[in-house]
Amino acid sequence: MDGHTLVGRRVPRADSGAAVTGRAIYAADVKLPGMVYGKVLRSPYPHAKIRRVDTSRAVSQPGVLAVVTAADVPGEGVFAREEVAFEGQKVAAVAAETWEAAEEALALIEVEYEPLPAVDEVEAAIQPGAPRVRLDAPLEEATDLRGNPLNNIARMNEFTAGEVERGFVAAEVVVELVFHIPALHQVYLEPHAAVARPEPGGRVTVWSGAQGIFLARAPVAQALGWPLQRVTVIGTQVGGAFGGKNFVYAEPVAALLAVKTGRPVQVVDTRREVFLDSHPGPGCFVRAKLGARHDGTLTSLQAEVFWDGGVAGADGPSNRLRGLYRLPNYRIRSYGVYTNKMAPGPYRAPGAPQMAFVRESLLDELARQLGMDPLELRLKNAVEEGDVSIDGHPLPRIGFKETLQAVAAHWAQRKGLASPPSSLSTPKRRGWGIAAGEWTNWVGSSATSVTLNEDGTVEVITGSVDLTGTNTLFAQIAAEELGVPLEQVRVALGTTDTVPYHDTTGGSRTAYATGTTVRWACEEVKRQMIRLAADILGEEPESLEVVEGRVRMKERPEEGVSFRELAQAAIRSAEGPILGGGKLASRPSRPAYAVQIAEVEVDAETGQIGLRRLIAAQDVGCALNPLLIEGQMQGAVVQGAGLALWEGYRYDGAGHVLNPDLVDYRIATAEDVPPIETVLVEVENPEGPYGAKGVGEPPIIPTAAAIANAVADALGVRVTELPLTPERVLAAITQGELTTAQQYGIR
Amino acid sequence: MDGHTLVGRRVPRADSGAAVTGRAIYAADVKLPGMVYGKVLRSPYPHAKIRRVDTSRAVSQPGVLAVVTAADVPGEGVFAREEVAFEGQKVAAVAAETWEAAEEALALIEVEYEPLPAVDEVEAAIQPGAPRVRLDAPLEEATDLRGNPLNNIARMNEFTAGEVERGFVAAEVVVELVFHIPALHQVYLEPHAAVARPEPGGRVTVWSGAQGIFLARAPVAQALGWPLQRVTVIGTQVGGAFGGKNFVYAEPVAALLAVKTGRPVQVVDTRREVFLDSHPGPGCFVRAKLGARHDGTLTSLQAEVFWDGGVAGADGPSNRLRGLYRLPNYRIRSYGVYTNKMAPGPYRAPGAPQMAFVRESLLDELARQLGMDPLELRLKNAVEEGDVSIDGHPLPRIGFKETLQAVAAHWAQRKGLASPPSSLSTPKRRGWGIAAGEWTNWVGSSATSVTLNEDGTVEVITGSVDLTGTNTLFAQIAAEELGVPLEQVRVALGTTDTVPYHDTTGGSRTAYATGTTVRWACEEVKRQMIRLAADILGEEPESLEVVEGRVRMKERPEEGVSFRELAQAAIRSAEGPILGGGKLASRPSRPAYAVQIAEVEVDAETGQIGLRRLIAAQDVGCALNPLLIEGQMQGAVVQGAGLALWEGYRYDGAGHVLNPDLVDYRIATAEDVPPIETVLVEVENPEGPYGAKGVGEPPIIPTAAAIANAVADALGVRVTELPLTPERVLAAITQGELTTAQQYGIR
Repeated sequence: MDGHTLVGRRVPRADSGAAVTGRAIYAADVKLPGMVYGKVLRSPYPHAKIRRVDTSRAVSQPGVLAVVTAADVPGEGVFAREEVAFEGQKVAAVAAETWEAAEEALALIEVEYEPLPAVDEVEAAIQPGAPRVRLDAPLEEATDLRGNPLNNIARMNEFTAGEVERGFVAAEVVVELVFHIPALHQVYLEPHAAVARPEPGGRVTVWSGAQGIFLARAPVAQALGWPLQRVTVIGTQVGGAFGGKNFVYAEPVAALLAVKTGRPVQVVDTRREVFLDSHPGPGCFVRAKLGARHDGTLTSLQAEVFWDGGVAGADGPSNRLRGLYRLPNYRIRSYGVYTNKMAPGPYRAPGAPQMAFVRESLLDELARQLGMDPLELRLKNAVEEGDVSIDGHPLPRIGFKETLQAVAAHWAQRKGLASPPSSLSTPKRRGWGIAAGEWTNWVGSSATSVTLNEDGTVEVITGSVDLTGTNTLFAQIAAEELGVPLEQVRVALGTTDTVPYHDTTGGSRTAYATGTTVRWACEEVKRQMIRLAADILGEEPESLEVVEGRVRMKERPEEGVSFRELAQAAIRSAEGPILGGGKLASRPSRPAYAVQIAEVEVDAETGQIGLRRLIAAQDVGCALNPLLIEGQMQGAVVQGAGLALWEGYRYDGAGHVLNPDLVDYRIATAEDVPPIETVLVEVENPEGPYGAKGVGEPPIIPTAAAIANAVADALGVRVTELPLTPERVLAAITQGELTTAQQYGIR
Repeated sequence: MDGHTLVGRRVPRADSGAAVTGRAIYAADVKLPGMVYGKVLRSPYPHAKIRRVDTSRAVSQPGVLAVVTAADVPGEGVFAREEVAFEGQKVAAVAAETWEAAEEALALIEVEYEPLPAVDEVEAAIQPGAPRVRLDAPLEEATDLRGNPLNNIARMNEFTAGEVERGFVAAEVVVELVFHIPALHQVYLEPHAAVARPEPGGRVTVWSGAQGIFLARAPVAQALGWPLQRVTVIGTQVGGAFGGKNFVYAEPVAALLAVKTGRPVQVVDTRREVFLDSHPGPGCFVRAKLGARHDGTLTSLQAEVFWDGGVAGADGPSNRLRGLYRLPNYRIRSYGVYTNKMAPGPYRAPGAPQMAFVRESLLDELARQLGMDPLELRLKNAVEEGDVSIDGHPLPRIGFKETLQAVAAHWAQRKGLASPPSSLSTPKRRGWGIAAGEWTNWVGSSATSVTLNEDGTVEVITGSVDLTGTNTLFAQIAAEELGVPLEQVRVALGTTDTVPYHDTTGGSRTAYATGTTVRWACEEVKRQMIRLAADILGEEPESLEVVEGRVRMKERPEEGVSFRELAQAAIRSAEGPILGGGKLASRPSRPAYAVQIAEVEVDAETGQIGLRRLIAAQDVGCALNPLLIEGQMQGAVVQGAGLALWEGYRYDGAGHVLNPDLVDYRIATAEDVPPIETVLVEVENPEGPYGAKGVGEPPIIPTAAAIANAVADALGVRVTELPLTPERVLAAITQGELTTAQQYGIR
């Protein structure tokens, strides 16, 4: 970063010391005098009618202070009232003097259920005759592209351009594949936890580890039926979120119990509860085909994406199948399907890794069929300035090709071009895969204040919860703008009472949007300091500049006023304390691209996949802090590897989760992955601070696809169901040539 | 208040419910997990050298976590290092698992003192040969106006105008009196208390009941030798302050112990500690004479004011002897005198009640000598627009005469003009007194933000600690400006981390200065709302207005946008959330006047004084909330009655406090005072919000003087030493005619 002293530096996270030494305060660490403990009663049935809830025995138990049910909550929300539609759904909660007493009292709540049939697989749910997932929700009349009637469809959407059939007619090669992707939990290490304290005057204070303090406030207020201003949310340290803590779980329960008991109440979910009652990334079932000419020019795409929408029948971003490559004709049908599962929610680049797995697998198969280098195929079709974006707008200057080219030297190291299907007899087979992803950071609502303390040190005040070191970035930006050492800047998180509305830390928006407001606030601080210094020095503001913690004369740098002097003078001046503000809630943002390469070694006898190399390139616009960005990339690639090889909810077919714990829901560990190689590409974004783009989400998008492509490269057969378990790999190998023949024969 | 719906209304304090039901959280109510308790070791000697402090026995005591002394504190501050100069001065502090263990450990700290002579009376301290109060402080060479050398003078100051001697030559009547006023404690009901919690990353959080969160932060940072930004202060409910909590006592001790132990530490002073180690209002000893012509025109004033400056040798506002009445010639000599007592500090209208007692007593005696009505004498000489203010500036339009005239009807009800000295034989004698006072509110530094919650409710964010209901006023102002019901406005106090610097709640500044910033912030909020509504409605901003929680068309009021809609739209708009700010730290303010009448009944046999009527008139500029203002006036008059009749520190002559408890330091109770009659005068202040002036301090100023004048009226003899105890009254009666003759014979 030319001309910058702090922006661009590898500054470690300010809070990492506290986090790794156990001194950081998470919501479960908040202990208040007189605090009692809340536990939630959950439905054991994936689907049932609730006939009766009798809390009388529980309430009369010694040590029990209160029980709350849907009857205590105005309107809908929090607890099931008449029907439960997934295993683990909340039915009631107890507050008691100890965790144990609360746990025991749960067993004394009598709930009379009438069990109903349930369905948990999206492919099964759409069949005529499948159980109805929710008795209370209307269904969409729908058929698939073949005209088959569909069941349990909550919503349907279609994205089209050009003439799809003509595009396939013009194609010289067509690949068609079917994909299965399971629901994926964010697996934040910190479980859901909250503390609520009733306050005098009919108020409540909530300690929350949600991704945003304001997103935690609204559901608490709603559960209580109170206006927002009667709820204060204090953000605690967040122990991982990845999109999953854009919802709150413990907070409304704790608040309801606190108001009912008049005592502070803590609710901490177990890992099992986290797995049973949260909002994981959605699974999906996809039928897709892609056509191209011999020279690699893409001609047409058709896809049906059946999103596993859980009890919400939620849809996903199926349009992400396109947008990275020029594609004149496409029809993408997107379905939100009800299943007897918790509703899905955002997980780091929501829906993008799923759609990248589909898109980049198709592309890879196409390269194989065409005998073309997969990187070359991508470069040939990659969108650039002026092409149509995923959202349908013309693209500004982007860095997709630059990012593809940034890995070309790595790609050239591979053992050779992806080989055609060959003998499967060699037990250890190596393969290389490449894949790409796009993400355009969200902007959202941000507001930041910057003020000077009386000793001239700098205070940055935000409503932005720090998940990933963004406070460190804000300090870098403020120190850069004001010309002071990093140690003189403190970044503080306000409460919902003391800062204006601020959106969640998510959507890769924080450095981009809140960072911009930090910069603006500093610019206003500089203007105020220069005005005041001009008064003090008797000079024109134009003759002054802010350098190294002083406002000084441009011509005579030895003459100036220190920040300390200015801070002191300001608080006795007509204008008052030095205070700059920056705010925004809408601003153009630019697509950022991630390209990754995986090298794998597959044991053809066991089906085990070993990761040998993972190379992640990303266009970050401007690397505000390469250390933190590399951390984001490495963490995301590890998660992506988990999605590829191990992760995913498993169900018994009747709505029961088979793996609601960290033994059976296997995530990637440090032992599973090689050191992750990172390549930062900087194609400036003129709208971002110093040219920056959002960086947190892009690197998870292509990982699973790159690994799957590497496996296909190694084996000559493709597994299209995630995760790529040894069983699936072995099955693919066994069916080897038959499978290959079937796939390649399809036209 | 014409045209206003909320400003001017008698709105009860928002926090009174919590306060009177015991649910408000004071610093002593803050309980944290793992919290330990701090107690302070204090000097039993009013003056001594510290030879040695040995903490080893205390530290090794079970349950004791740490002991801190001056050796733990960088630079000066907190603990005495080599010399103690008043009884109760801090020498060390202990943190222990219980209060009892901490208390017991104090006895195990071995301090070797070398006692030194001490002096506690200002009249004694100034004598040549008096003990030297502080060995470490330089003295001022000084003589009094008679040329006598003075001892223990820390500072000297003189205010003069015209030619004093000529003025007395021109006088036809001169009164000369000697006054004694004791040091006066603010007697806040809540003792000093604080909790400090060490935080990860080398920070500390402090819960403080100080009058300002920022004034608590600086001394904590200083004690620790840390920059300000490493200290966070959270303001708690304040249980009375009256200027006395502009200093902090428990906070630095708690913080030092917290950092040393790594545990949260609570320090709560006992009432005895509060009386021994705080900053009471200063006593003084005054020699003064005032001359006038037969028609009542004042000609000259000469005074020597010896302020009891304690270990600080602090001076007081002796210039307050003048400024209310036109006075062409004066010489006021002001001395700050060292005594072996704690340093004095601000107490509600600092120094003004003392100087009013002197000034208004002199004036009353003059009226008696002149045979003139005391109200008439005041009206004749009262300053008005264009005259010189106390600060030496020309006065703007003021309301002094209006305030004097406002009590004329009450004054006319008295039994007759103040009678000349007469027979003292009637046991029950009634008398009336009148007195006046002036106060120009301080401005200080204020900054306020106003924002909309997503549901359209209004949040006012300040750094202003609420002592007297000012948050209720801010809510009234915001509700008035934005046209919403009071219930839709919440006022929140930020922490030192999350709001810009804000000065203390004191100097009658808050409604005036911070109230102005609330109004400005609302104006900015309105501008932003109108801009956004204009966008939404496709109309010109000029055609819109903010009425009743909506922005609507002036011409077609049925068309508009609700605050809720605007709040929601704003957080998806380019400008970002609706957020207005107002800040200032300097602004003209205008003198406010208080005039009070007391009717007393003195029992000439016992010397007991009964208060029959207390009438308080005050120019408040604009009565933003008459209920709260009347509360301020009533409370101040009760305090003033205490000063007149009961209150004051008593010492043994060698520096030991004789009455450090609420049995021996007697304050006024509800039984002691009649219902206090209030008269609000409104002479608009164009600089204040809606014309308001500061109201909290003026009403304490004239009370003691009015009561003393009433007693003199009843008895025909004057007691010039406060408080007017039965002993002093009886002594005055006994010496009756002799005293009178002496006083009146002096020329």
